[in-house]
Amino acid sequence: MNIITIGRQFGSGGRELGKRLSDVLGYDYYDREIITAIADKSGMNASYVEKALESNDWRNYNFTFMHSFSMDSVMQSEKVKLLSEQRKVIDGIAESGKNCVIVGRNADILLESYNPFSIFVCADLEARIRRCEERSSEGENLTRRQLEANIRRIDKNRALSREIISEKKWGEAGSYHLVVNTTGWDLKELTAAVADFALKYFERST
Amino acid sequence: MNIITIGRQFGSGGRELGKRLSDVLGYDYYDREIITAIADKSGMNASYVEKALESNDWRNYNFTFMHSFSMDSVMQSEKVKLLSEQRKVIDGIAESGKNCVIVGRNADILLESYNPFSIFVCADLEARIRRCEERSSEGENLTRRQLEANIRRIDKNRALSREIISEKKWGEAGSYHLVVNTTGWDLKELTAAVADFALKYFERST
Repeated sequence: MNIITIGRQFGSGGRELGKRLSDVLGYDYYDREIITAIADKSGMNASYVEKALESNDWRNYNFTFMHSFSMDSVMQSEKVKLLSEQRKVIDGIAESGKNCVIVGRNADILLESYNPFSIFVCADLEARIRRCEERSSEGENLTRRQLEANIRRIDKNRALSREIISEKKWGEAGSYHLVVNTTGWDLKELTAAVADFALKYFERST
Repeated sequence: MNIITIGRQFGSGGRELGKRLSDVLGYDYYDREIITAIADKSGMNASYVEKALESNDWRNYNFTFMHSFSMDSVMQSEKVKLLSEQRKVIDGIAESGKNCVIVGRNADILLESYNPFSIFVCADLEARIRRCEERSSEGENLTRRQLEANIRRIDKNRALSREIISEKKWGEAGSYHLVVNTTGWDLKELTAAVADFALKYFERST
């Protein structure tokens, strides 16, 4: 079974690359599907689950987490439960034994024993801001400064939630098998290049 | 003209990957050749040039460099001259217009206007220590701790000498087009994968 995991900077095109990879390779694709599964199991609303897992409140969440009074303890225990549910859902995906691409959720760490091919997707800040502008919904009208603040906040949360479970730091070169910069690429062409690379990894002799 | 630049963690196999890439692609290869050229032009001994450029003394070299009294000023001006010579040699390589692979020397920054495909090569610390052990000359007999200290010192120097000329930090995900982790790969197979990726980059439509 081949598992590809995708970590990504916000606005880098990582999700699109992951989706395209799964299409090109004929692999199953998991991203929001994981949130929906947790929501179904816990009886909670999917967008609430997503917000709770990616919430900005996580910035108070650090190594002293269990002793921290900076977050409401009910919220805390709810988040711990959701994280545990998330782990179960991701374990279930791997146990199904089917080739897949999983975007986000530190799946490379959670599924380390399956030796997934772990990719991190990044892009120059300018390119990420442009991508966010192009994708922002009508009437949203965020300023450049607001978009940049969003990018930094979301990425900081991602880094923090990884720090809790691994020493392989979020977004650091050595934490992944491959780090890809999407700047200057057509994503379709980049997908073909990454897909070939991943297949060579799975077929390698060592 | 296609230029591939290779930055690398010490002991990651980056130099070998670069050499193999140049062989597979039929590109010119530059690494120590740059040192030899500087030595020839300056009338200095090649190993002195190499030591001076990669010397540990660079750790005192920071943004206040020009006003720093922490290094002997004669040594300082000699290093500045050598760096300037190095830049000329690297410019000359690019001006020759031939496809090439350049290892180290922050060539991706120096040749930014040529839009090189910039690769950073890393590996897990354990794999790097093992590689250093395998390659250490007979009778060298460095302990594991000494090898690890060497790795950290050399990488720190590399990071510092890049910091002086660029905001694209050494070894950071977003500073390169591609970051490759050699751990668990046969270098010959990895070379084939990277070569294909690089060619797709040079042939891309955007």
